[in-house]
Amino acid sequence: MSSLFAVLMAGGSGTRFWPASRGARPKQLLPLGGEVPLLARTSARLGDLVPPERQLVVTGAHLVDAVRAMLPDVPAAQVIGEPAARDTAACVGLAAGVVGRLDPDATVVAMPADQLIAPEAAFREHLLAAESALAAHPTRVLVFGVEPTRPETGYGWLRRGASVGTFGGKEVFALDAFVEKPDLARAEAMLEAGGHAWNAGLFAFRPSAMTAAFAEHLPQLHEGLLPVVEAWGDAAWTDTLAARFPTLHKVSVDKGVMEKLSDTLVLPLPLDWDDVGSWTALERLLDADAAGNVTSGDAVVLDGRDNIVSATDGGVVAIKGVDGLIVVHTPDATLVCRRDDAQGVKAIVAELEKRGLRRVL
Amino acid sequence: MSSLFAVLMAGGSGTRFWPASRGARPKQLLPLGGEVPLLARTSARLGDLVPPERQLVVTGAHLVDAVRAMLPDVPAAQVIGEPAARDTAACVGLAAGVVGRLDPDATVVAMPADQLIAPEAAFREHLLAAESALAAHPTRVLVFGVEPTRPETGYGWLRRGASVGTFGGKEVFALDAFVEKPDLARAEAMLEAGGHAWNAGLFAFRPSAMTAAFAEHLPQLHEGLLPVVEAWGDAAWTDTLAARFPTLHKVSVDKGVMEKLSDTLVLPLPLDWDDVGSWTALERLLDADAAGNVTSGDAVVLDGRDNIVSATDGGVVAIKGVDGLIVVHTPDATLVCRRDDAQGVKAIVAELEKRGLRRVL
Repeated sequence: MSSLFAVLMAGGSGTRFWPASRGARPKQLLPLGGEVPLLARTSARLGDLVPPERQLVVTGAHLVDAVRAMLPDVPAAQVIGEPAARDTAACVGLAAGVVGRLDPDATVVAMPADQLIAPEAAFREHLLAAESALAAHPTRVLVFGVEPTRPETGYGWLRRGASVGTFGGKEVFALDAFVEKPDLARAEAMLEAGGHAWNAGLFAFRPSAMTAAFAEHLPQLHEGLLPVVEAWGDAAWTDTLAARFPTLHKVSVDKGVMEKLSDTLVLPLPLDWDDVGSWTALERLLDADAAGNVTSGDAVVLDGRDNIVSATDGGVVAIKGVDGLIVVHTPDATLVCRRDDAQGVKAIVAELEKRGLRRVL
Repeated sequence: MSSLFAVLMAGGSGTRFWPASRGARPKQLLPLGGEVPLLARTSARLGDLVPPERQLVVTGAHLVDAVRAMLPDVPAAQVIGEPAARDTAACVGLAAGVVGRLDPDATVVAMPADQLIAPEAAFREHLLAAESALAAHPTRVLVFGVEPTRPETGYGWLRRGASVGTFGGKEVFALDAFVEKPDLARAEAMLEAGGHAWNAGLFAFRPSAMTAAFAEHLPQLHEGLLPVVEAWGDAAWTDTLAARFPTLHKVSVDKGVMEKLSDTLVLPLPLDWDDVGSWTALERLLDADAAGNVTSGDAVVLDGRDNIVSATDGGVVAIKGVDGLIVVHTPDATLVCRRDDAQGVKAIVAELEKRGLRRVL
């Protein structure tokens, strides 16, 4: 029997999906490009291989109730609400400690809660392969390398080194280097050269290995987490978490730990993967009509091409004579921007905050 | 003391203001370009000259409750709900008959309930002038000619003839001809020539004169209206109206009566006038920002010029990187179209109907 454990990292805010995403309903709780919220799909994708009782969800404190309602089979204590956002290192360090208490011999797979991966059976095969590789190399950390399909400049990349062997039928490699978000020329070169993959924030480790890595590379954060991990499941848990967590060093697990390790493994993940990063993701997740329009909900497009239109909560969007726009309707707010400026939503959110319109954020 | 009576024609549907306008909340009930609904502004504009007890409102049967709530000082029996839309001739014929019963010697001013006219005091001076002209010419009908400010092809025009005299300080003319909606060249020629005005659907008459005109030019409609007028104020009113009104000949008062009269008067109306005909009216009613954007409600425009944005019911619209658009948000529907295609809203409404989305119409 497998001893796989999953950590679902559900702490993001997803402002690029405003107005659908809000503080109390961030991207991972939205059914983007489908009918089931991304977090619920991430949990269900693990199937019987990592059932809910072996899942740990780390999210914002204000989202704990919503997450527990969405994932009722995940034990309540395993939905952890961060009282303050401290980036991914604190999240992963805490999760490694908590899983270590539940099952010191577990293999932990950590993953963002807001991605889409298919086919699901093949994904689970790769989780088993990772477990197998870490059984042979229990002190190392393994990162999944998403097979790149375009010269994407928005992600970090991974360059793999020599083969380490085949595990669960999958070849595993030594990691040669993390590559920072590249410029287009470099991204194109990596895509053409092969041997490179996207760093999707999906990785696996034994709790002891990650804890040791934290102790070495983020000793202060490691020390700060010890009493929090110890309090988990106790009466002191809530108070300890509230007192300690907000004081922890704020750094990403990539910067703070992963990039400092010298013997990381890479397991290529040649699957359909999408980080659902902005409204333009809908063009990959939904079928376009003959005029290139992608619509979600009740949308009417007259005399228009290549628009992305989303009508949430039973609303209706009607557009006429416009091309290449993103139009999103929610009951209390509407967004219109250019499809080639999907990142501009961040600027809109900042402006709304500045104008005192937090009621729709 | 004046014996002026006003008929407020509030039967329109105003689909060009979708999604703000709906079947149950048409244009005249909306506070377009201000904070007070157009119907309420039309009623209030009459001031003490024609107080609510001498106003008659003809609207759709489904709007009677909303109109009575909006105009509580208009006697309930003087808010008449048409059980079916039969165009303006039936409306005017019925109103002439009802006012004739209330005060056979009244001078009736009929006006659409969804226009803006300013200054209000000057408007009332023109109503007094019309009354004075009709006191001298009680068998004639008088139309108000709105001074044209642009070569508008969307309205019918009036060509005036010889002066008939000065009444209440205003010169009144014989009407030479109604001019159908002209092409641009003709509109420009009329604007340049002078002596022409827009037909805004504002006119005045004695009940006996209008009834005689109906008897002559629309005898069947006249006959059909007689029992309805007779039932007004009686127990039989509701049933009679419901049984008779929907069978009446459907024609506009312009086509059916006015254009057939030979001795109509014209009173020039050199005032600010707006028929609030489509969303582009907001550009005339509201101040634009430095980039030419006109906004109503909480609207944020980033990197965009010359947009018309309306956020109703406390909602928020945020747009970025787009120019020359109309964007309207309501809680259950959003519209986006080009500013130079404001009439296209009609096509959108037709398409929504076709798609079975009547819930937002």
